[in-house]
Amino acid sequence: MKFNIRTHTCGELRENNIGTQVVLNGWVAIRRDLGGVIFIELRDRYGITQVVFEPSYNSTAHELGKKLRSEFVISIEGKVRKRPAGTENPSLETGNIDVMVDKLLILNQSETPPFPIENKIDASEDLRLKYRYLDLRRPDVQKDLLLRHKMYQITRKYFDSNSFIEIETPVLMKSTPEGARDFLVPSRLHKGKFYALPQSPQTYKQLLMVSGFDRYFQIVKCFRDEDMRADRQPEFTQIDIEMSFIDMENLFEIIEGLMKEFFKEIWNIELTTPIPRLSFDKAMEKYGSDKPDIRFGLEMVTLNSVFKNSDFRVFKDSISNNGVITGLLAKGCGDYTRNQLDVITDFVKKLGAGGLIWMRVKENDLEAPIAKFLSDDEKKNLIHEVKAETGDLLFLLTGNKLKTLSIMGSLRLEMAKRMGLINSDLKPALLWVTDFPLFEWDEETKRFYAMHHPFTSPRIEDIPLMESDPGKVKARAYDLILNGNEIAGGSIRIHDANLQAKMFNLLGISETEAKEKFGFLMNAFKFGAPPHGGIAFGFDRLAMIFAGRSSIRDVMAFPKTSSGLSLMDDSPANVDESQLTELHIRLKK
Amino acid sequence: MKFNIRTHTCGELRENNIGTQVVLNGWVAIRRDLGGVIFIELRDRYGITQVVFEPSYNSTAHELGKKLRSEFVISIEGKVRKRPAGTENPSLETGNIDVMVDKLLILNQSETPPFPIENKIDASEDLRLKYRYLDLRRPDVQKDLLLRHKMYQITRKYFDSNSFIEIETPVLMKSTPEGARDFLVPSRLHKGKFYALPQSPQTYKQLLMVSGFDRYFQIVKCFRDEDMRADRQPEFTQIDIEMSFIDMENLFEIIEGLMKEFFKEIWNIELTTPIPRLSFDKAMEKYGSDKPDIRFGLEMVTLNSVFKNSDFRVFKDSISNNGVITGLLAKGCGDYTRNQLDVITDFVKKLGAGGLIWMRVKENDLEAPIAKFLSDDEKKNLIHEVKAETGDLLFLLTGNKLKTLSIMGSLRLEMAKRMGLINSDLKPALLWVTDFPLFEWDEETKRFYAMHHPFTSPRIEDIPLMESDPGKVKARAYDLILNGNEIAGGSIRIHDANLQAKMFNLLGISETEAKEKFGFLMNAFKFGAPPHGGIAFGFDRLAMIFAGRSSIRDVMAFPKTSSGLSLMDDSPANVDESQLTELHIRLKK
Repeated sequence: MKFNIRTHTCGELRENNIGTQVVLNGWVAIRRDLGGVIFIELRDRYGITQVVFEPSYNSTAHELGKKLRSEFVISIEGKVRKRPAGTENPSLETGNIDVMVDKLLILNQSETPPFPIENKIDASEDLRLKYRYLDLRRPDVQKDLLLRHKMYQITRKYFDSNSFIEIETPVLMKSTPEGARDFLVPSRLHKGKFYALPQSPQTYKQLLMVSGFDRYFQIVKCFRDEDMRADRQPEFTQIDIEMSFIDMENLFEIIEGLMKEFFKEIWNIELTTPIPRLSFDKAMEKYGSDKPDIRFGLEMVTLNSVFKNSDFRVFKDSISNNGVITGLLAKGCGDYTRNQLDVITDFVKKLGAGGLIWMRVKENDLEAPIAKFLSDDEKKNLIHEVKAETGDLLFLLTGNKLKTLSIMGSLRLEMAKRMGLINSDLKPALLWVTDFPLFEWDEETKRFYAMHHPFTSPRIEDIPLMESDPGKVKARAYDLILNGNEIAGGSIRIHDANLQAKMFNLLGISETEAKEKFGFLMNAFKFGAPPHGGIAFGFDRLAMIFAGRSSIRDVMAFPKTSSGLSLMDDSPANVDESQLTELHIRLKK
Repeated sequence: MKFNIRTHTCGELRENNIGTQVVLNGWVAIRRDLGGVIFIELRDRYGITQVVFEPSYNSTAHELGKKLRSEFVISIEGKVRKRPAGTENPSLETGNIDVMVDKLLILNQSETPPFPIENKIDASEDLRLKYRYLDLRRPDVQKDLLLRHKMYQITRKYFDSNSFIEIETPVLMKSTPEGARDFLVPSRLHKGKFYALPQSPQTYKQLLMVSGFDRYFQIVKCFRDEDMRADRQPEFTQIDIEMSFIDMENLFEIIEGLMKEFFKEIWNIELTTPIPRLSFDKAMEKYGSDKPDIRFGLEMVTLNSVFKNSDFRVFKDSISNNGVITGLLAKGCGDYTRNQLDVITDFVKKLGAGGLIWMRVKENDLEAPIAKFLSDDEKKNLIHEVKAETGDLLFLLTGNKLKTLSIMGSLRLEMAKRMGLINSDLKPALLWVTDFPLFEWDEETKRFYAMHHPFTSPRIEDIPLMESDPGKVKARAYDLILNGNEIAGGSIRIHDANLQAKMFNLLGISETEAKEKFGFLMNAFKFGAPPHGGIAFGFDRLAMIFAGRSSIRDVMAFPKTSSGLSLMDDSPANVDESQLTELHIRLKK
């Protein structure tokens, strides 16, 4: 179909265009027929312009205009005019003008969409995902993807201007030891063999450092075949970064520069650097989380010293078992009812706490079920430590250290919500969390796992502890936290083949297994690996936060459901038996 | 290991740094021990700097310096000095200075590499691919990947500044009808079902147009499970582009703007636009190829009119069978020996020609085995048509049109090589090839196939021919050719659901099959699809040409072999039986 190419987009015309003959192409967003005059709000990605079909102006166009319905695609030709006084639409950037139509061409018709193409709709997410191509027409969704586009450009421009090289790493790679979560791809040319899709380009980026590329970055798709949780996707996007001949400080500086760009370009905020830092231990003690939301206070206080001589059995046991007693002061919540306190007690019990100790702070006293077990000194010191005042409410939890702190961390967030501390006025807050443990002990399998991944370097001063007391070894690892979300994580890597071998050994990865899975990396390390380190951002989550959304699906063009289905095209799908035969596989009955 | 972070890179120091105390980190490229003084050429991505260990300057450093070997990674501290007169190295940018070493730290040792880290090596490609991380250290290889990096940035900057939106499309998608070449990914969560890896984001980008994104681009990995040919890779990179409300002219203008940027930024050439265009028919007639190299002339001439009344049976038959008689004039080659002519005859016979007609152009005559079959008028007209002069050599081929033209096209390239017409002085030449046939007839299966893909729009004036004479229908398709390489191809798409259905029908894709495979696209078209079209560049090949290389493997960081093997990590590889069980598949015996 021949049609006139637009002279302007639907977001472009202003009063200085009045009198001009123009061509617009777009979708019928809204159609109104007022006493024989047809008003169409014509929409494209750039905006909305009102076009007018008036029988006395052009009766042919007006006649054809009667056929228009929502989402028809049209090309119109007409003259820009000033809108009659009183009919301006200040909510449109083009709202002072409209276009009197001389000529209309219907480029395509449209069935009635399953939901209206507007920002506020009440269609279910499943319906929106099935008709994602229509959902993507909604201006808010387009705005989010435009933001994502902008973030790509900011990222690449920043790294390019800092001498980083963008390098594409393979998508068809070798299955790794964390292979249980690998997506596999059967090879047709090599019978019985499989490629794996990368969970991250970790080994490749380390090889690039061995190759001397010095500074690498890539915005890259990664894949993880997990049992889906609410906000996970089988494929996701990372900003992947690696640098040579650096220490943590150099890397932090580079990343802080990137965050400055994002804050400036997206939120128009001048970010002050350096970004504050907190060790993992401190983060757990003060916020009960390794990704604390520090936009508000409500800090936890470790109270072991207050109760070090306590006769109260619960505290006594806890302290002698290397446990923790942690407190949280809810200012002005002393009037919480017994019922409210029961709800909160249930909240922590569901997270695994044995129970919740609460105390109402009264003038010169603490009102609490356990008050009778505490000495006057303990009460006084407690009030002093947590800076309690009359009318406050105090929560205490005790038990196994990490677990208890973590539960109190959840209660902290819950109380922040209840107390209205989390609101849109809060200034965004970034935080580095550092000095993670190198290993995590797994009670079930009775062995250590790498808290980050097996290439993470221990702190140099902790290397001697690796064999004597692995649990005490801190890693040169770091996470970047934004508003309580982990947006990036990384580490300085091991660049020494011997230290790497020791690490595999401690993780129970046998020499044979290490050789089979990572032999090429270990070999590479024999030919002069430089000191190096890096970091990777979860790009989808970052875009979600900058867009002010609560699901990463909102900032992905074609997301899958939490079980990995694409409702739009019904994938994954059945394939022909002949295809499987070519791939040398068959379905398991 | 603690070490001093570099103050400068190895490519940075100049005479104005003389006297400065500096720290350099890098690899030992060359080590020379001259009368007790050790000279090290220290290398990093940015260049090479000579550092000097002199016993009288610092005996400790000198002593340790004796241990250095090729590819050791070191950190040195020292003072920049002017090189003694006569020892400057003009081939290095840092060649007027060197650094007297005060302190040396060996950051990592290196075994002797399997091949030297320098540009000219004679290691086999297999060995280089196995140790790709060392191959990537060679300055020329790094240069190629830096060029590729630059091309990414040029591309994105260009499209961003032209209001294109970068959108990521899924990698885990639905298998398509060309599915035989799909890589499949078994689903763990959905038993017996499979994702496919995209051969291109074609359907997604068309959906994005239906969504109104108007201008889309992406640099994106694509996958094709082909029987490997010399320069194919199972995964490759595309620049993918789609636009709405446009015709071919708009798209050409945008793409020509991109090529201007590339030519300017990479080759420092001001590209003149518009880029010349040639229809598929003309390209075949003049160059015997749909991707002609027009950097040199040597054009073919169709001679049917010369021989329209010929009594020579070969020509007569050919003309009556709708065949072609095509000629190629090799200027000044009239002295080719009988032996040379036999070799050339063999060349075309191997390509499927029945034989080759050659004629030596003599003064007022043609000397040729077939001369006796030609009338004087035919000889005269022939000489006139091909502009032959004494001393020239003339080749004629006749037979089935496309096949014969194509063989002559190969001979044209062969003769261009023999005549020395292809050399590095040639100016690069771009060309649009347009008006491709919509369908290709397959003699074997006796049916039509889409020459591009089933979404390509026919020329509007040809739509009536679709049923009456499909072979005559021209497509609104176009390829962009650079120096005889197809670097991009695209088309204006069908945006009408009915026309698309007709197209599927003509291609023998049943309604059920079309619905199952493309139902979501057909559905999307019911809700107001705009006119749209696009193009995709083969990024690897483009980078190869700009880098002046002859294999795409040279411009990929971690390429696979022609059979899809990664020699570095031995993938594809065996996986555990338990992994297959989880994926509900088993190996076929």
